[in-house]
Amino acid sequence: MPAQPSTARGSATRRRILDAAAQEFSDRGLAGARIDRITQHASTNKAQLYGYFGSKDGLFDAVVADSAERITAAVPVDGNDLADWAVRLYDEYLEHPDLVKLATWLRLERQPAGDLFSEVQHRPKVTAIERAQAAGQVRAGDPFDLMTMVIAMSLAWSPSSNVYAATASEPDEVHERRRTLLRACVTAAMAP
Amino acid sequence: MPAQPSTARGSATRRRILDAAAQEFSDRGLAGARIDRITQHASTNKAQLYGYFGSKDGLFDAVVADSAERITAAVPVDGNDLADWAVRLYDEYLEHPDLVKLATWLRLERQPAGDLFSEVQHRPKVTAIERAQAAGQVRAGDPFDLMTMVIAMSLAWSPSSNVYAATASEPDEVHERRRTLLRACVTAAMAP
Repeated sequence: MPAQPSTARGSATRRRILDAAAQEFSDRGLAGARIDRITQHASTNKAQLYGYFGSKDGLFDAVVADSAERITAAVPVDGNDLADWAVRLYDEYLEHPDLVKLATWLRLERQPAGDLFSEVQHRPKVTAIERAQAAGQVRAGDPFDLMTMVIAMSLAWSPSSNVYAATASEPDEVHERRRTLLRACVTAAMAP
Repeated sequence: MPAQPSTARGSATRRRILDAAAQEFSDRGLAGARIDRITQHASTNKAQLYGYFGSKDGLFDAVVADSAERITAAVPVDGNDLADWAVRLYDEYLEHPDLVKLATWLRLERQPAGDLFSEVQHRPKVTAIERAQAAGQVRAGDPFDLMTMVIAMSLAWSPSSNVYAATASEPDEVHERRRTLLRACVTAAMAP
């Protein structure tokens, strides 16, 4: 069982490890990541890293959970305005491309089929969609499927895109053109 | 410059290498793939493999181009019925998950930003959408963006999904439920 840090200094080290690992895993994936590079960037050593996270796999799991928590907190779903939620996700992926990359490595390297995350993690989103359906604001259909579709639409230009991955360095008007299309498409697709 | 096979036997060997490599690269990516496993599954040797493809990177490029060609031929775009095209793509990913996986490894390992394939490869799809726009059958907007959005929607349950990756072994009614939603959402999203 990995240890929890008991001091502020320990917590700071654990945070530095998570941040360095998020970068390393999102650039190189689980198999390609090197623990040496992570400890170097986090100014720590392997004994501390393994003390907090147990193993490379344990560290990967912790990084994915940490990033997923961050995006859920930063971009809460609004069942009454799924189009706006999708646009906020588009902006979040631009600013923090690492979560999408981490999730996509996880998909390719460890989870080739079925749920990528536990259904529990999606529960607040599914509940928000069910409420909006009950209020007649969103089309009928399996709420988990609707959530999956809106997330897929938000990912159209993400770092996992099979066509074009947007970057923050592109001109504003290009992003605005995509946001406008994304908003219009999600609005139309989800209308009752 | 890699050699082209000059005999039927050579062509058959080249085909076996491409098929074995498609499996290996889609399971393990470019960095994780092992040339030994590919030559073993293709019943050939490294000299022949490097003779035809030059290098591991050259083989990866050839496999990606081969799979992209296959999907374009198997699932031609219909600008007047983009929803039907999306549903046919859903079925193609179920039957041949390797192209999506290959494209996604390519995105993560080699092409973190911008176009994944050359714009030339998308030209027939963009032209079909432009024609449908001119005929008033598809919404206004950048046709490349519209194509990107429809492809993203078709990929909602694909092997690159950040939520749920469908498999052919699931019950028919589950696939039918997703096809129905996908068709309805693309129809609504692309309506003029």
